[in-house]
Amino acid sequence: MCLSKFHFKSIPSLLFRIMVILLTLPLAMNAQEVGQTERLVSPELEADNSVVFRIKAPKAENVTLSGNWMPMVPNGNQGMIRQTVELAKDDMGVWTTTVGPLAPELYGYTFLVDGVTTLDPSNLKVARDGIFRTESLLYVPGEASDLYWAKTGPKGSVHQIWYDSPNLDLTRRMFVYTPPGYHESTEEYPVLYLLHGGGGDEEAWPTLGAAPTIMDNLINSGEAEPMIVVMTNGNPSQASAITVTPKLPNVEQSGNNMASMLFEKSLVNDVIPYIEANFKVKANKDNRALTGLSMGGLQTMNTSFTNPDLFNYIGVMSMGFADLSRFGIEVDHSKREQQILDLKEANPKLYWIACGKDDFLYESVVTMREALDKQDFEYTYRESTGGHTWTNWRIYLSEFAPMLFK
Amino acid sequence: MCLSKFHFKSIPSLLFRIMVILLTLPLAMNAQEVGQTERLVSPELEADNSVVFRIKAPKAENVTLSGNWMPMVPNGNQGMIRQTVELAKDDMGVWTTTVGPLAPELYGYTFLVDGVTTLDPSNLKVARDGIFRTESLLYVPGEASDLYWAKTGPKGSVHQIWYDSPNLDLTRRMFVYTPPGYHESTEEYPVLYLLHGGGGDEEAWPTLGAAPTIMDNLINSGEAEPMIVVMTNGNPSQASAITVTPKLPNVEQSGNNMASMLFEKSLVNDVIPYIEANFKVKANKDNRALTGLSMGGLQTMNTSFTNPDLFNYIGVMSMGFADLSRFGIEVDHSKREQQILDLKEANPKLYWIACGKDDFLYESVVTMREALDKQDFEYTYRESTGGHTWTNWRIYLSEFAPMLFK
Repeated sequence: MCLSKFHFKSIPSLLFRIMVILLTLPLAMNAQEVGQTERLVSPELEADNSVVFRIKAPKAENVTLSGNWMPMVPNGNQGMIRQTVELAKDDMGVWTTTVGPLAPELYGYTFLVDGVTTLDPSNLKVARDGIFRTESLLYVPGEASDLYWAKTGPKGSVHQIWYDSPNLDLTRRMFVYTPPGYHESTEEYPVLYLLHGGGGDEEAWPTLGAAPTIMDNLINSGEAEPMIVVMTNGNPSQASAITVTPKLPNVEQSGNNMASMLFEKSLVNDVIPYIEANFKVKANKDNRALTGLSMGGLQTMNTSFTNPDLFNYIGVMSMGFADLSRFGIEVDHSKREQQILDLKEANPKLYWIACGKDDFLYESVVTMREALDKQDFEYTYRESTGGHTWTNWRIYLSEFAPMLFK
Repeated sequence: MCLSKFHFKSIPSLLFRIMVILLTLPLAMNAQEVGQTERLVSPELEADNSVVFRIKAPKAENVTLSGNWMPMVPNGNQGMIRQTVELAKDDMGVWTTTVGPLAPELYGYTFLVDGVTTLDPSNLKVARDGIFRTESLLYVPGEASDLYWAKTGPKGSVHQIWYDSPNLDLTRRMFVYTPPGYHESTEEYPVLYLLHGGGGDEEAWPTLGAAPTIMDNLINSGEAEPMIVVMTNGNPSQASAITVTPKLPNVEQSGNNMASMLFEKSLVNDVIPYIEANFKVKANKDNRALTGLSMGGLQTMNTSFTNPDLFNYIGVMSMGFADLSRFGIEVDHSKREQQILDLKEANPKLYWIACGKDDFLYESVVTMREALDKQDFEYTYRESTGGHTWTNWRIYLSEFAPMLFK
């Protein structure tokens, strides 16, 4: 960490000289418009995990910081909003605040400069959460976040694949993680199908979910078996995340069609056959796992209830037998009892349910467990603190993956 | 395009209802903090390729737009800066300007809100140009930009691979493009090694360079042969782009070591053997091509001059026999005459040199051509308009790839 007087970090001399020379040249040079020769350090992590945030805005009248470690607070009659903290301005026009110490975690934050949401210009690490929310990322190290930190040593690959989906009449995008050593090996691997939630897409688990890094760390430490992880787009009307093609975003295309069962059909009939034909895969029930969060939890339930012999490991995160009619979604629960009996008969090795005490879908998980208990259906229940958050979903993946294929 | 009175786009009703309900729930729900229920449309493309830019900033006193279609202008004695245009504020606090009509191209732009650089909050499409410059992207359609637009139809895959580089003592990241049909095919493919410039990294060609989309379009139209394209990191001290691991950026690690020949050694001894061992590759000179821009052009020269029998197709973009001592870089030109003779003897099928009339390295290309002419070394020279820009590098890739492996 830089602790120089003005909290600026010097660009090294060679790069500095290159920039000075290039910036004085009289021609257009896009690649070289690197800008200022000194740069603020933000965020700056202190030894005790306090964090200093800085942004230069000499003309601004008010700058605040909003980070997802802060609580939600009432916003008049407008529901709840994330709390913010004010930054203070020095005579160089740099706004600063120190927060924490913060618990080890991968956080997201933004500045509000005179009311305009702004990423931290000094921080290159950003991720998109949901359709329109892009945030700067802050990693606070410690035992609880250690799996989210990329270490030296062997790393898996992430393949961006476009596959034909006849069931959705689309060529669709997915990310496929292959474990360290996959390319060099002649072995076949088991597969985990990992589903995102509503508002998300196929980019969610590889970025905010940190799935490739978590899997590398779990596999390298021997905690998890080497496996392939498939992350496709769970919104059946989308070919891919709307960031991909160079066109203006069209929110209409991002409808979820949660109750349509269309995604579930394409998962079983398009995605799994593609993976099993094109990767080195152990193509049988013992070596297939399925999990998902929220909408992806509903899709996990739907898929495993209607295809009881497909997966030996099933994980439902932050979702239960929810009445989604308030969202305009009608889920057909009338067949659930028979479906539970069918899945019980198929006897999967693991049916895992995870939910946070503060999750707004908590009651739906109670309802689900009661329905399963009524049929003496065996499952493992993991109740965590917290709510419907990526903090929990990263933890759930970290706990679910080590239980698979053993 | 939305042409409603207030230039807002409605979120579809289901998503709207979900958000209204979730935002009134009293619990923390990161994934659902989607924010406002109406959203500005920006950028908005008009029928004549004029573009309307909008940003809501009620408290700001001054908002300007800077886009890379604008000229560089003198900045007092501070060299040259990109021109900006002012936006005008309406009584709802929305700042607007209309520019153009713009020529078909993939552009980058940012807003300056009271002096603070801000991405367009209504535009999901962003890319990083160089170490610290992230921009919002604007695609203006037309014949000249048609190759940069992802079309329906078969698409190649992009593989993010970590490979051992004993020559650099690092596990390093690269992106490997495989063409449509690669997974299903038993054929072997030729390989293009595609290098970025100084200040860039392995993310440059897949994002700003639009290489996967350009290759899909050229291959699908039959203009280019199906080929693998390898995009690794040309900075020998870097394992990967500094955006990758969740740590604070460290500019010191991004030194280029342009004159060290270290990257060239790792390309020949680490990268190419990895690709030829792990992909379905025709592993011979006839089926290897190498090209790069700026620093990558220097590396292309260095690699092909010192390994004359390795590549049958060589492309040098925006680089010549430059005196780089003003950048603190000492290139050993003393062996160039013998190297030219050695490469002439090896007789590559194509040695292609491309440079813009306004490139600040234009004179170095003149020097290079004179040196090649002196030895009767055959090459193809392509002089374009413009300078040291991604506009030119995308065009050069679009022209170079169709000449390969035929």
